[in-house]
Amino acid sequence: MTALPLGFVARTANFGIKDGSLDFVTVIGDKGTVGSSLYTQSRFAGASVVLSRELSALGTTRGVVVLSKNSNVATGDEGMRNAREIIESVAKFHGCAGDELVIASTGVIGRQYPMQKIRDGIASLPRGTATRDAALVAQAIMTTDTRPKLAEATVAGSRARVVGVAKGVGMIEPNMATPISLVFTDAAVSRSDLDLAFRWCVERTFNRVSIDTDTSTSDTTVCLASAAAGAVDLAAFRIALYDVLLSLTKQIARDGEGAERIIEVRVDAARDDEQAVTVARSIVNSPLVKTAVHGADPNWGRVAMAIGKCSQYAEIDQRNVVIRFGTQEVYPRQVDDEGLQRLSHYMRSDEVVIHVSLCTGTSEATVWGCDLSDGYVRINAEYTT
Amino acid sequence: MTALPLGFVARTANFGIKDGSLDFVTVIGDKGTVGSSLYTQSRFAGASVVLSRELSALGTTRGVVVLSKNSNVATGDEGMRNAREIIESVAKFHGCAGDELVIASTGVIGRQYPMQKIRDGIASLPRGTATRDAALVAQAIMTTDTRPKLAEATVAGSRARVVGVAKGVGMIEPNMATPISLVFTDAAVSRSDLDLAFRWCVERTFNRVSIDTDTSTSDTTVCLASAAAGAVDLAAFRIALYDVLLSLTKQIARDGEGAERIIEVRVDAARDDEQAVTVARSIVNSPLVKTAVHGADPNWGRVAMAIGKCSQYAEIDQRNVVIRFGTQEVYPRQVDDEGLQRLSHYMRSDEVVIHVSLCTGTSEATVWGCDLSDGYVRINAEYTT
Repeated sequence: MTALPLGFVARTANFGIKDGSLDFVTVIGDKGTVGSSLYTQSRFAGASVVLSRELSALGTTRGVVVLSKNSNVATGDEGMRNAREIIESVAKFHGCAGDELVIASTGVIGRQYPMQKIRDGIASLPRGTATRDAALVAQAIMTTDTRPKLAEATVAGSRARVVGVAKGVGMIEPNMATPISLVFTDAAVSRSDLDLAFRWCVERTFNRVSIDTDTSTSDTTVCLASAAAGAVDLAAFRIALYDVLLSLTKQIARDGEGAERIIEVRVDAARDDEQAVTVARSIVNSPLVKTAVHGADPNWGRVAMAIGKCSQYAEIDQRNVVIRFGTQEVYPRQVDDEGLQRLSHYMRSDEVVIHVSLCTGTSEATVWGCDLSDGYVRINAEYTT
Repeated sequence: MTALPLGFVARTANFGIKDGSLDFVTVIGDKGTVGSSLYTQSRFAGASVVLSRELSALGTTRGVVVLSKNSNVATGDEGMRNAREIIESVAKFHGCAGDELVIASTGVIGRQYPMQKIRDGIASLPRGTATRDAALVAQAIMTTDTRPKLAEATVAGSRARVVGVAKGVGMIEPNMATPISLVFTDAAVSRSDLDLAFRWCVERTFNRVSIDTDTSTSDTTVCLASAAAGAVDLAAFRIALYDVLLSLTKQIARDGEGAERIIEVRVDAARDDEQAVTVARSIVNSPLVKTAVHGADPNWGRVAMAIGKCSQYAEIDQRNVVIRFGTQEVYPRQVDDEGLQRLSHYMRSDEVVIHVSLCTGTSEATVWGCDLSDGYVRINAEYTT
């Protein structure tokens, strides 16, 4: 069992929002727990995002509530009232104030919560039987995920741990957050140090994964620190946090709808970070690149196309660009027959790296995604509202 | 037979660039013909684009050469030399100067032209047997298109005609041009009037179609006016030109790789044109919207998501947005059971309209695309370099 860090307990339940699987979880930290949260920038952000953004601005967050199978998005004033009521009820259950919690929701869009079921469910939450099993938390936030996503790391030079869970398989191109991720640590860090470290790590992990370019309306990521394991070295803490978020990011890419392999795109020798990320995203999101990887075809012409369409960068000169699959250069020096043999073997691996040097500067970035399969189409064409 | 407008003749041929189908066409206008051309903004633009952009800047274009089945992209200095040689040879054949032609190429990326075949082909072009059959021109520029794309219109109040051909089924999100389109008219218009009208129409047609968000490295669109049918009313000319380009745009959407239906997205009540186009593109390019349309599912939550991810527009307020499929409002007023019945029938039609009112202003825009099917994935995963 992967335990939650010290100072946290969880309750999970099934309220019957959609089916018999877990659809509710609340995790609360001991008094003194501090938090940092990031939310989707979507103009159609759900009620939970709108409310939690307000609440977390108060700086008093020490717990979280997540409902899965219904996102409470595009539900108007009624959706907002419902989100507030749930927060208040769960706060009462915990014996804390409403502004000590945030709420996240995920699932179908445009449907009101089955409030009676939720009221009954919260009313009958068993007081005593809290759990510290992080796998249960990971399971409770799943919607159509094929497997729970869980990662942990120890902060070097301390006994503090970082444990994270995430969910999401489609509608994934986070803009400031991931489809829903909860990260817990018992390291003693101040709220501002936590916030800085968390934002830095999210920017380089969750914010760099894309399954389908479609940004969810529910993206929420919350990090809570209980201080129960004492002081840590901040640099070591950041490394542990990064490792957990990176692992979750890759788990998301690997479980992308219909995905058979991860695509990692590294762009280096770029003018600046923004250029490196933009070009890398253009490659990892290109349907033609994604289908080529699905077909295990080292089609570098499509990579060149995806670089080329970043036409805002006049300084990108096709004569200076280098394209590689893994470590094998394919452009401008074209691959010989022996190299092609190796390459076609490489293209069948679980994780394909596309490595591009732009030769416009010294910045670099890595992004993650997955291949585009007929499975993705099937899943999303057959999913009925 | 759809004849080319007066003042133009064409030669088509098979040079064996890839197979036995037509892969070469040259169309030349009488002396006095004027032209306007637009090219891809790609940073990996092919040799033909680079050369033609230079040539058309001289303002002397009156003819065009197109080679299909090999795009001459990412072919370096050798590719540039080959493009120049082809232009010179074809100009010699026509008895005109090299700077009176432009060249376009489409097909596989990263392979040098089979120059001996092309030299032999040009050398044996029959002098006398020119054709005026526009369908042959449409056919000669095809690569993996399942059908030729051809449209014509008459300029009201005159005997002048506009005839256009286009190609392209994938790697389509034009940026200033379409995957390759040639438009001919015998209207007498000045070069500057032609240029203004052509840019205006391209901006509202070719520039608003997307099959897969992937901008081709070969996009070239050329419009030539021979003046052979005499003077026209400029407004009437623009309407005829627009009609031809719009028809070609829809033919491209309909023949999108694996497509079963066209998606037309209309965004109105927008702050400005840029916002209307950006939001419309976000909807038409969303893989989740495209797969929903493929599954004939009126999943307006995904449309809301695609609007929402245009997070740069703080003034878009989800409480004011209206979403419709065809004429049926689905958000905020949700559809009743009877409406749902009608809607699920509508979603099975050949052309699905998604109509969004942003309520941020008075601008509007329409874009075109197609559904995303397992056919698209199959075609592009199995296509081998």
